[in-house]
Amino acid sequence: MSKIIDLNCDMGESFGAWRMGNDAELMNYVSSINVACGFHAGDAQTMRETVQLAIKKGVAIGAHPSFPDLQGFGRRHMSLSPQEIFDVVLYQVSALKGICEAFGTKLHHVKPHGALYNLAAKDEAVAGAVAEAVRKIDSKLILFGLAGSSSISEAEKVGLKTASEVFADRTYQPDGSLTPRTQADALIDSTEKSISQVLQMISDKTVTATNGEQIPIAAETICIHGDGTHAVKFAKIINQRLTENGIKILPI
Amino acid sequence: MSKIIDLNCDMGESFGAWRMGNDAELMNYVSSINVACGFHAGDAQTMRETVQLAIKKGVAIGAHPSFPDLQGFGRRHMSLSPQEIFDVVLYQVSALKGICEAFGTKLHHVKPHGALYNLAAKDEAVAGAVAEAVRKIDSKLILFGLAGSSSISEAEKVGLKTASEVFADRTYQPDGSLTPRTQADALIDSTEKSISQVLQMISDKTVTATNGEQIPIAAETICIHGDGTHAVKFAKIINQRLTENGIKILPI
Amino acid sequence: MSKIIDLNCDMGESFGAWRMGNDAELMNYVSSINVACGFHAGDAQTMRETVQLAIKKGVAIGAHPSFPDLQGFGRRHMSLSPQEIFDVVLYQVSALKGICEAFGTKLHHVKPHGALYNLAAKDEAVAGAVAEAVRKIDSKLILFGLAGSSSISEAEKVGLKTASEVFADRTYQPDGSLTPRTQADALIDSTEKSISQVLQMISDKTVTATNGEQIPIAAETICIHGDGTHAVKFAKIINQRLTENGIKILPI
Amino acid sequence: MSKIIDLNCDMGESFGAWRMGNDAELMNYVSSINVACGFHAGDAQTMRETVQLAIKKGVAIGAHPSFPDLQGFGRRHMSLSPQEIFDVVLYQVSALKGICEAFGTKLHHVKPHGALYNLAAKDEAVAGAVAEAVRKIDSKLILFGLAGSSSISEAEKVGLKTASEVFADRTYQPDGSLTPRTQADALIDSTEKSISQVLQMISDKTVTATNGEQIPIAAETICIHGDGTHAVKFAKIINQRLTENGIKILPI
Repeated sequence: MSKIIDLNCDMGESFGAWRMGNDAELMNYVSSINVACGFHAGDAQTMRETVQLAIKKGVAIGAHPSFPDLQGFGRRHMSLSPQEIFDVVLYQVSALKGICEAFGTKLHHVKPHGALYNLAAKDEAVAGAVAEAVRKIDSKLILFGLAGSSSISEAEKVGLKTASEVFADRTYQPDGSLTPRTQADALIDSTEKSISQVLQMISDKTVTATNGEQIPIAAETICIHGDGTHAVKFAKIINQRLTENGIKILPI
Repeated sequence: MSKIIDLNCDMGESFGAWRMGNDAELMNYVSSINVACGFHAGDAQTMRETVQLAIKKGVAIGAHPSFPDLQGFGRRHMSLSPQEIFDVVLYQVSALKGICEAFGTKLHHVKPHGALYNLAAKDEAVAGAVAEAVRKIDSKLILFGLAGSSSISEAEKVGLKTASEVFADRTYQPDGSLTPRTQADALIDSTEKSISQVLQMISDKTVTATNGEQIPIAAETICIHGDGTHAVKFAKIINQRLTENGIKILPI
Repeated sequence: MSKIIDLNCDMGESFGAWRMGNDAELMNYVSSINVACGFHAGDAQTMRETVQLAIKKGVAIGAHPSFPDLQGFGRRHMSLSPQEIFDVVLYQVSALKGICEAFGTKLHHVKPHGALYNLAAKDEAVAGAVAEAVRKIDSKLILFGLAGSSSISEAEKVGLKTASEVFADRTYQPDGSLTPRTQADALIDSTEKSISQVLQMISDKTVTATNGEQIPIAAETICIHGDGTHAVKFAKIINQRLTENGIKILPI
Repeated sequence: MSKIIDLNCDMGESFGAWRMGNDAELMNYVSSINVACGFHAGDAQTMRETVQLAIKKGVAIGAHPSFPDLQGFGRRHMSLSPQEIFDVVLYQVSALKGICEAFGTKLHHVKPHGALYNLAAKDEAVAGAVAEAVRKIDSKLILFGLAGSSSISEAEKVGLKTASEVFADRTYQPDGSLTPRTQADALIDSTEKSISQVLQMISDKTVTATNGEQIPIAAETICIHGDGTHAVKFAKIINQRLTENGIKILPI
């Protein structure tokens, strides 16, 4: 039986007069997209255009809710209460869900963005608030979260289906957490090493941590970054190499 | 057979730390509410609280989408294209619809707010963009618009059910339009005169224009203002007087 | 020689259609005001109106810069870098300074707002960024900060004149810090106790901590809250009682 | 005696994570820049960085205030009252002026942006509100406005020095107004034709209107667009050709 993996990428990150990312090209190589919902990027027009493009390209559409911080692109931590997090997730996901349905498709998943993603991965109250908002909207939505984190465990607690996310270009600590970006060895610069890590994650269900140790990891969806200069090139290569290795790229 | 009328009121107009209106009290006297969706007032938290309160009080919930102008409370005209209007209405109504459904109720209607309401009433392209956005979200949603205006006729063209709105405290021109607020006689200050006007609108389907002429008017829903100091008092009196006259106050 | 103290109050906290506080009344009883600069409250119109009112009432005008969080009223912590904090303080204070000068008065002081105030009080890098922004705008501006905190010490390091702020209605810990609002005894509800605490702070330069210990405190300006229902009443009483005790209420 | 002309370009139009324009390159070829002030583009960080870059490059710094419409890039008309326009111009120009002074330079001029520029050019009340705000900030600031428009005449009325602006790549109507962008011949696509138009404007103080007629025009500053793909190339060529024709490129 052939193996299956999901490739996901953040999209719809333009805002007003400003462009970001090459969504039309990238959608050729991924199976799922996470669409900004207006709080860190995206606006009503960008969201509608991204949904229409995704329908044309046949990729699964997810919501990418964030802290309300457009100027900081949702990358700065904000001390929202669990109730406030529930509310902003409910609002953003609902907006995108309605746009999807207006154009005849269904919302597929939810992946928190940036600082909210990172916080949910380690704070159970935050992860629980996100999960509860998603469950109340539609209990069939899939929650994308950091593999092995509280994002996944809290979503499971409320009965949501989850997708454990791994990163092609990030290194891992012996405890399974991502090496913080503040450390020199946080990022994998070599395309070959990134692909090797991904193949190992899928085939062996392990990753080699920064200390050389092989640790178990659950890889159900792989995050591809869409905002670098080589984003399209990398997406194309990883798509090709996975396919060559008999791995099918399909949504969860 | 007893007559029926809808009383509607704009609500959910608080934002962040700022309070506006006495929603809990006003909901005792009206049958429908129009909830701000975050572009001119309201935020994710206010919207969720307003929906929960409306469920408790048993009033019909409508969306109140606006131009994106929080500082101007959506009262300033903005030159958005029909496509941009379609997009901002789609986004805002979808957000509120999702919040309603998350708490087990259904969105009932859509009434554009402020400058967008006024523009749609006289600009067919704008009215058409609003109507098309609403239709794509759910063709069963009811469009609230100024009685006799292009808001109503364009909504009917795309097959939406409509509710012709009249105002208790505004005077009318011989051509059926509202007297502009820039004119001295735009507003009816006397509670008794307001109630008389409303009773005439419902019973005779006419209104007495500023020149004394009786003109026909279609009154399906009456707008009660929620932001004045006497708002609750006026809502209570009009509710009482309509009931005394054998008119049932019910959603469309 | 008679004693002198400054009474300050946050003002200009309306935004767009929303009103907050009774600025015109409160200005009769305080000597300094801190004007919101558009990031947590206030807008261009509110700022200009507040400056004009302050000139009429003869109170000293300070800037009240905040994290960029209108919906959260600047009360939520945000992880801005020191450079980002420098930039948002520089922008906000410059805007208010220009408005003051356009109407023929001078900006007098700067007091960070809400979460930024609290963070600067305990984080030297943040306090240093605030102080450096203020110094670059005008080295004669006075920095208002929590008495005994890094806000004061970092401002002194860059050569700014400072005003040590104390609170009439907050209790103090034995180490001189404010009792966190999460604790039951954080607030002083009794007007008489508040006034006693203030009189002791001014006369004896001490405060009685929650454990009963008398600890030294530098009180150069007293913060009066403007947003409660009894704000005006309390401001009037404290003004009266200080005056009766021979204490002159004057700006720093 | 050699002729002198000012070349100006809109800059500082990045926002948060989004980049726009190649400011560092463009500053090599122009003498004046108009810096976005946070209402249609720019943020506190971008403004500070742009000011620092301008000081290094030796170009004159102007403020580029706008309607409050980030998503629409200030290109959509908004029905602000003259008082509201006064207030938003006062706020934005003050913010940039303070940033300039914090880094030891002076603000040189003010040029309204986008829809506000166009409105001021034909609406005397709007032009008057802009001029009055600028005058109150600093009566020595130069007002940049459309040559021959009410922007210039109203600024002169309040005693401001003005700079009549012409466009290298726009065609003119027989009455001296710009051909609306909705018309096919609004833009000059050919670099050579643009340069010819500019040289004629400077040397003969005339422009050839779309009907072939030569009409008088006052050209004190030429607007170069910074946001196209060929922006840097065009700026370099026009700078070179003007210099070759003995015209010095210097701020007003």
